[in-house]
Amino acid sequence: MSLFSEISEQPERIQSLLNTQRKAVEQIAAAIRGRDISYAFLAARGTSDNAGRYANYLWGARNGLPLALATPSLFTYYNQPPKLKNALVVGISQSGQSPDIVSVLEEGRKQGSVTLAITNEPNSPLASAADFVLDIQAGPEKAVAATKTYTTELMVIAMLSVAMNGDRNDWKDLGQVSKWMKQTLKQNDLIEQAAQRYRYMRQCVVLGRGFNYATAFEWALKLKELTYVEAEPYSSADFQHGPIAMVERGFPVMVVAPQGKVFASMLDLMARLRKDILAELLVISNAKKALSLAQVPFTIPVEMPEWLTPLVSILPAQLLAYHLTRAKGFNTEAPRSIRKVTETK
Amino acid sequence: MSLFSEISEQPERIQSLLNTQRKAVEQIAAAIRGRDISYAFLAARGTSDNAGRYANYLWGARNGLPLALATPSLFTYYNQPPKLKNALVVGISQSGQSPDIVSVLEEGRKQGSVTLAITNEPNSPLASAADFVLDIQAGPEKAVAATKTYTTELMVIAMLSVAMNGDRNDWKDLGQVSKWMKQTLKQNDLIEQAAQRYRYMRQCVVLGRGFNYATAFEWALKLKELTYVEAEPYSSADFQHGPIAMVERGFPVMVVAPQGKVFASMLDLMARLRKDILAELLVISNAKKALSLAQVPFTIPVEMPEWLTPLVSILPAQLLAYHLTRAKGFNTEAPRSIRKVTETK
Repeated sequence: MSLFSEISEQPERIQSLLNTQRKAVEQIAAAIRGRDISYAFLAARGTSDNAGRYANYLWGARNGLPLALATPSLFTYYNQPPKLKNALVVGISQSGQSPDIVSVLEEGRKQGSVTLAITNEPNSPLASAADFVLDIQAGPEKAVAATKTYTTELMVIAMLSVAMNGDRNDWKDLGQVSKWMKQTLKQNDLIEQAAQRYRYMRQCVVLGRGFNYATAFEWALKLKELTYVEAEPYSSADFQHGPIAMVERGFPVMVVAPQGKVFASMLDLMARLRKDILAELLVISNAKKALSLAQVPFTIPVEMPEWLTPLVSILPAQLLAYHLTRAKGFNTEAPRSIRKVTETK
Repeated sequence: MSLFSEISEQPERIQSLLNTQRKAVEQIAAAIRGRDISYAFLAARGTSDNAGRYANYLWGARNGLPLALATPSLFTYYNQPPKLKNALVVGISQSGQSPDIVSVLEEGRKQGSVTLAITNEPNSPLASAADFVLDIQAGPEKAVAATKTYTTELMVIAMLSVAMNGDRNDWKDLGQVSKWMKQTLKQNDLIEQAAQRYRYMRQCVVLGRGFNYATAFEWALKLKELTYVEAEPYSSADFQHGPIAMVERGFPVMVVAPQGKVFASMLDLMARLRKDILAELLVISNAKKALSLAQVPFTIPVEMPEWLTPLVSILPAQLLAYHLTRAKGFNTEAPRSIRKVTETK
């Protein structure tokens, strides 16, 4: 099974990336520092778009860099691209093939912006269109549902953030992610058993906030692609501005809520969902208070700094999606209606 | 019923806005033109965030202004706001009360950016925090689910776009929106009947692209808030990068696809959904080819320019949500678990 082995090899992949690509990342960071950049403008689809959501929070919080998610149709169908003065234009794509993402980088280059491609294919059209290329080196990903290319994308995004700031202690923290991933993957048997509970689940919501807003989106995408469950992701704040009305007694709510700055607000919401609305909670966390509210708790290591938790908190979610796909009798390698490389304009 | 009367009064509200606020909008546009602005940075929640999605496409396509959606938690919980040099900082909120949105404007002002509040409450904390205020003048909105404040927000966003470009013909087009809205609302009886078909629907997806990406999000939000259906919105491109796997025979897909630049791509996808996957389609369009693919078609006027269709295409969606709420026996005025003013940090 490619999917299971691709999930399992993530600790090695991100460690090897850290070992071999640090210099390349530092060179790119230095080149970016020399330019007058006010914001990042990022184009991506699917899983890579979720990696972009991590960049949105990480680069914003740690590097003071605001991030706009591109609207590729303005570059393709409308042919009315915005002015990209002072932008760092970033494209993220596993295959580097999707024409809409390539268009955004080509336009950025045409307008004289700094362009960066993050891809698993350094010989792709996306890489050719960019001034700088970060190769995520995930190796061939055979399963249609992306797993290791997501976490390697997160890793280069984090490495670039650290390189832009130049803090040595942060590099040390990055060096521990592989170990934290291995610890987390040890819950595989427990997650396989827990997946049985969701055999007949048709719909759910997935909540996260701050750095783990990205995790909520990627978790939901894995559930949709693999298990065909209608899983809708939300920031816990947006969720309270309307969609919470949908939740009734027993409705499944999945939450990623590690310790950190947004934890207290997530805990308040979980308590309301569990105690007032009587929803069902599945929680990924490293905080006892959150885990004890859940019917089904999955843990990540306690000692992780919040900004790196997205690299690890997605692993139980990937395993859950994998085992639930098997429990439902669906194909883990090639879901219906989608292919590995989707080319949209 | 406040909700029904608020839906019905939209043609008058947007016309009165156009008649009374043009000068204020032109003054703001002139002030913005004098500043060195590279991009807009926009904070909003819920329905107002969907209005922000319209600004993202409209200002990008017609004014060359890229737009970043703010990540309010960086301003509140993390206290690590990004640098907003060269940004036009915009906050949209019906009530002007939500502390997270106010925080973004306060930070923008602190950093010396140009700040703009779009609100129904010109005496609110949001308005106080801004250099410029656009009053949407929707009158009191009593129903918890926002309708007329959405279209009036769209209208001031469109007016500001036109004022920034200064094209007289565009003002003429804006002057016709009220008439197009009235024509569209005449389908009320037909929509009431059609709503019966969805009495037992539990989940669906809602697709749109380009200018009507916003419509897909707002349509889905009304279904979730009012009918408790798990309705998930997508760009038709993102949908094909994974979530389409969820759709099986008979699965309800709602599509907003007026004539325009993205229409051909939407039509391809609709044909695939209907003919290959055998999904069920509800379509809002002014193109026969699209309407004839649908089990349930709702129309908008043929002569509308694409960039203004979001102001009108949301009306059948609002009516559908209203009548389906009644068909399901739920409360159209005050949905469970949410209040009119949600204050998140």
